[in-house]
Amino acid sequence: MRGKRVVIVGAGFAGLEAAKRLGRTEARVVVIDQRNHHLFQPLLYQVGTALLATSEIAWPIRHLLRRHRNVQTLLGTVVGIDKAARRVQLEDGTSFPYDYLVLATGARHAYFGHDGWERFAPGLKTLEDATTIRRRILTAFELAEREPHGQMREKLLTFAIVGGGPTGVELAGTIAELAHHTLPGDFRAFDPRKAAVVLIEAGPRVLPSFREGLSAYAKRALERLGVEVRTGAAVTEVDADGVTLGSERIEAATVIWAAGVQASPAADWLGAPKDRAGRANVEPDLSVPGHPEIFVIGDTAMILSDGKAVPGVAPAAKQQGRHVAEIIRGRLDGDNQVHRFHYRDQGSLATIGRRAAIADFGWIRLKGGLAWWLWGIAHIFFLIGVRNRVAVALSWLWIHTSGSRGARLITQRDPDHPEP
Amino acid sequence: MRGKRVVIVGAGFAGLEAAKRLGRTEARVVVIDQRNHHLFQPLLYQVGTALLATSEIAWPIRHLLRRHRNVQTLLGTVVGIDKAARRVQLEDGTSFPYDYLVLATGARHAYFGHDGWERFAPGLKTLEDATTIRRRILTAFELAEREPHGQMREKLLTFAIVGGGPTGVELAGTIAELAHHTLPGDFRAFDPRKAAVVLIEAGPRVLPSFREGLSAYAKRALERLGVEVRTGAAVTEVDADGVTLGSERIEAATVIWAAGVQASPAADWLGAPKDRAGRANVEPDLSVPGHPEIFVIGDTAMILSDGKAVPGVAPAAKQQGRHVAEIIRGRLDGDNQVHRFHYRDQGSLATIGRRAAIADFGWIRLKGGLAWWLWGIAHIFFLIGVRNRVAVALSWLWIHTSGSRGARLITQRDPDHPEP
Repeated sequence: MRGKRVVIVGAGFAGLEAAKRLGRTEARVVVIDQRNHHLFQPLLYQVGTALLATSEIAWPIRHLLRRHRNVQTLLGTVVGIDKAARRVQLEDGTSFPYDYLVLATGARHAYFGHDGWERFAPGLKTLEDATTIRRRILTAFELAEREPHGQMREKLLTFAIVGGGPTGVELAGTIAELAHHTLPGDFRAFDPRKAAVVLIEAGPRVLPSFREGLSAYAKRALERLGVEVRTGAAVTEVDADGVTLGSERIEAATVIWAAGVQASPAADWLGAPKDRAGRANVEPDLSVPGHPEIFVIGDTAMILSDGKAVPGVAPAAKQQGRHVAEIIRGRLDGDNQVHRFHYRDQGSLATIGRRAAIADFGWIRLKGGLAWWLWGIAHIFFLIGVRNRVAVALSWLWIHTSGSRGARLITQRDPDHPEP
Repeated sequence: MRGKRVVIVGAGFAGLEAAKRLGRTEARVVVIDQRNHHLFQPLLYQVGTALLATSEIAWPIRHLLRRHRNVQTLLGTVVGIDKAARRVQLEDGTSFPYDYLVLATGARHAYFGHDGWERFAPGLKTLEDATTIRRRILTAFELAEREPHGQMREKLLTFAIVGGGPTGVELAGTIAELAHHTLPGDFRAFDPRKAAVVLIEAGPRVLPSFREGLSAYAKRALERLGVEVRTGAAVTEVDADGVTLGSERIEAATVIWAAGVQASPAADWLGAPKDRAGRANVEPDLSVPGHPEIFVIGDTAMILSDGKAVPGVAPAAKQQGRHVAEIIRGRLDGDNQVHRFHYRDQGSLATIGRRAAIADFGWIRLKGGLAWWLWGIAHIFFLIGVRNRVAVALSWLWIHTSGSRGARLITQRDPDHPEP
């Protein structure tokens, strides 16, 4: 079994965990990602709102795996799988052989058939998405300082966030904080506290994966921060000037999309069955039907555990990465049994803003300041790399003591958006 | 004199200093910049080589000026000056009136008539330049890991830096350190220590603004770091595959330009006389001939002090900003005398790499470790903003104790360069 080739595509939470667990084995492991960095996605919204710098939540994949001498990291874009030849095909025409294949290619945001909305309402999945959103938010305030017409300025100072899940709530809360706590004093022509932040959710409540009491608390906390929460409001149109909700119109220069995700096309590469969100339907051991040597994990996989769909969250992705690594290690040692994946729900945490968060661990539910501290400590604890932890802890300390933000940079040009 | 309008274009070292010195006066000051951030350019090469993050050396201009209630910051691109109407014209068609105008628009890198070389050999003046260079350097190593052919891999692992001034020396030294100290252990297919860093200088020695002894030390220090120093070597061609030096060819996937600067077009806006580098020839008080109400300062101005051209360095820019601010304050109080600008040379510092730098204060010259510590302390001291200082100090401490770098991120796509 020595020298078996394991190819892992994608180095998010799932793929990276699988790679680490296969480190120091006799397998030859190749990790292929189209980025050179692993991204700590749960804090991406803080880059989008100028709280953290890009380098505080991203880390070179090869550096994270450097101690595992049997693991090689490659920068490359996978475009297909040849299941018969057992080869992974890359964009540049090259291909890599595998004995075991782990697909952990994640998800992108989805516009439910309205792909044309993307240029007006960027989503938040990559570092570039985050700097795009940061640029648009900061540019809107900059343009407002130069805008003589009241109505136009009002539009520039309106921020519409579509989607009331954790990302939408976090974005709305931190944009409101930016306007109310960070920016006042920096502008002469208007008061940033006049900015309107509107959170739009089609369903009846925000953070619908939490219990109703916690959802209601989140709504009140958002409103206290100055966010206008619109539930039961479905977006029917998005354009350069705002969003339409049926017969109602919200004029907003900045629209951010946090409403849906679509899995990467791994299921299509495999010709495997998938659900509506594009996730591959996998066997109970996370393998692809008919192909015990191919596994799909993380946000790209659709799997039930205890009769419920496993959610697309970091702990689930890590558990899946660990699970397939252990299956593959077993196979290398001659164990060909099927090991079912079982999701261990460690509880849910969501933050709303300054000293407001909610937590549900099943046996206990928390809200407010205590949940917020817990959220902060948990996120710092799970950040990869000693220095990132220290850097983020210091950034947060700085932000909360000084009120200023460390990464208020408008960088790169934006072809889809007006600029000075 | 109350309510006179002062417009400052550009918030680099010169413009920002002028704005601060005019803060808390009765003048109405408007600072216009096409970026939202002031950039600490002396450390830009450290962003280009993944030592520092972008947000560690850049700071929102309006935040730096927030306490000066008479100063307004505007994001905008100036495209012309109407001297007769005394108005500054912006790209979007709007214009701003002035009683006094300060042009501090800086310089860009220059290709001596070979503008086509820019796409193959980016220069280093903006944050985007720095992330472009960082992306190219890191991508070259990434591609080398996938490259099966020895000759191609050698080309990928060759880094040519054109220009032996401070920026070229700093870039060459830190790229060599990256290859020799940071990256070994992270790659499987090759040894990063095999990378070739070539510093190309047309003149007879590197750091020509320093005395010969210090230049010679810098050359030896570079060679100790593994840099190949080529003096007396003029570049005759730059393309996607490398550089040509007369009859010699250096195959290099990464070429960086640090060879020349060209002033921004402020002299053209004014129809004023300029030198070969495009700098406006100004009066001894930094005003434009025939226009005592218009000043040109910093890298955009050509002025003699003690018979020598004032160099394009940060201390000179700051002194000029302070000088014109004092002239304008005097005018507001009815003082119309001409005050000559006199440059106070506080000495020169240049760093080569890990514990190697040179310093010349006239009365004393230093080289080696002591000069390096002095360089580091001086740069941290001059960094704007308490947190940036702390952040940079911690980053450096981390880099020098752990050997890893904090900002090894490949972000954004590069239309001018091959990528995986």
